[in-house]
Amino acid sequence: MGPARDLAIVLVSGGMDSAVVATRVCQNHEPAFLHLDYGQRTEARERRSFEALTQYFGVGRRLVARVDPLGRIGGSSLTDLSLALTDTHRKDSNIPLTYVPFRNTHFLAAAVSWGEVIGARWIYYGAVEEDSSGYPDCRERYVEAFNRLIAEGTRPETRLAVVAPLLHKRKWEIVREGARLGTPFQLTWSCYGGSEQACGECESCRLRLKGFREAGLEDPLPYRERS
Amino acid sequence: MGPARDLAIVLVSGGMDSAVVATRVCQNHEPAFLHLDYGQRTEARERRSFEALTQYFGVGRRLVARVDPLGRIGGSSLTDLSLALTDTHRKDSNIPLTYVPFRNTHFLAAAVSWGEVIGARWIYYGAVEEDSSGYPDCRERYVEAFNRLIAEGTRPETRLAVVAPLLHKRKWEIVREGARLGTPFQLTWSCYGGSEQACGECESCRLRLKGFREAGLEDPLPYRERS
Repeated sequence: MGPARDLAIVLVSGGMDSAVVATRVCQNHEPAFLHLDYGQRTEARERRSFEALTQYFGVGRRLVARVDPLGRIGGSSLTDLSLALTDTHRKDSNIPLTYVPFRNTHFLAAAVSWGEVIGARWIYYGAVEEDSSGYPDCRERYVEAFNRLIAEGTRPETRLAVVAPLLHKRKWEIVREGARLGTPFQLTWSCYGGSEQACGECESCRLRLKGFREAGLEDPLPYRERS
Repeated sequence: MGPARDLAIVLVSGGMDSAVVATRVCQNHEPAFLHLDYGQRTEARERRSFEALTQYFGVGRRLVARVDPLGRIGGSSLTDLSLALTDTHRKDSNIPLTYVPFRNTHFLAAAVSWGEVIGARWIYYGAVEEDSSGYPDCRERYVEAFNRLIAEGTRPETRLAVVAPLLHKRKWEIVREGARLGTPFQLTWSCYGGSEQACGECESCRLRLKGFREAGLEDPLPYRERS
């Protein structure tokens, strides 16, 4: 046995990107899985994937918490059921309507608070800048700004940094890396529709399917039969 | 009537500092009051002060939300009932045990998310750096880092900035400013004990009473009779 491994928190949504990150972390660190319920329409299904991944990797250190404010303010088609998923953009903005205002700051804040208490060294998070939806809180400059915030806003003895290893990866590269590491893609969930079978047609399904296609691999997830 | 006033969110805890900030904001901006319940032992009492202040200032735009992760992780004597309020510091740290890990990031994140949805221009927050308890997330460098995070992590069209007008004020100056502006101090609550009458002896009561004493003013709040 080697020396004790660093404790690393992974934000595990249940989607494929964070599952690939989780696979890597479980191989290199002492993992702690964090899942946030922010009132998104697909939470029940994503939560099942989170539980399945936790069990698959045998992770004992886990925390599920709610991000209550995001469910109360609306403004995104992922949390506000009065907005249709088919409306993709507001007229005055390049940012998609699926954008949840400042969402990742709530997630990372939860990870930092937990990390200070359990003495974690790293926070791994599967944000993807390129080949994704153009959310402002999925960019390298955002991650850098967040790391400065940790340095200023925590105990002087706290050593905690956010790592976003997929930031500059294309979706097909993430699929390839997951396949190489042994990520159980069949346990993950990406569809915004949130029924028993993935729809294959929403923005998120299309991105996922394109990634598998370009990687030359087959997505093990069953998709709804198209009529 | 002058031009339409900027919409400003105020973090209103129910304490005296945020009540002074709220007084100023109500005189200069269109106010929106935000209160966060983070599982602190005194929440029920603080919530009553928040409601009383909201009614006093006639503020229609209000949001109360929970910060669920902080209640789940413990690590602070304000949220973890297994820690005594009389234990003031951990042996290995200069930061008091009442410090709630990264707490203000959760608060400000809620304000930014809400602010993006309602189109606010400012977030007012009553953090006090000097003459306070030495929390890392109550310092000017923290506020600056948070404003960079907003710039990187929100829609390009979002104009939102955190203002912490009390940051460099001493407690007695805050009392004086509140008295000048007409802050209803009798509606506020500072005691960590959280019973019907303030204890007058906890860290927070002592800081408040010292502030009134040094300002040469009387605190209108009733305190428990000392035996």
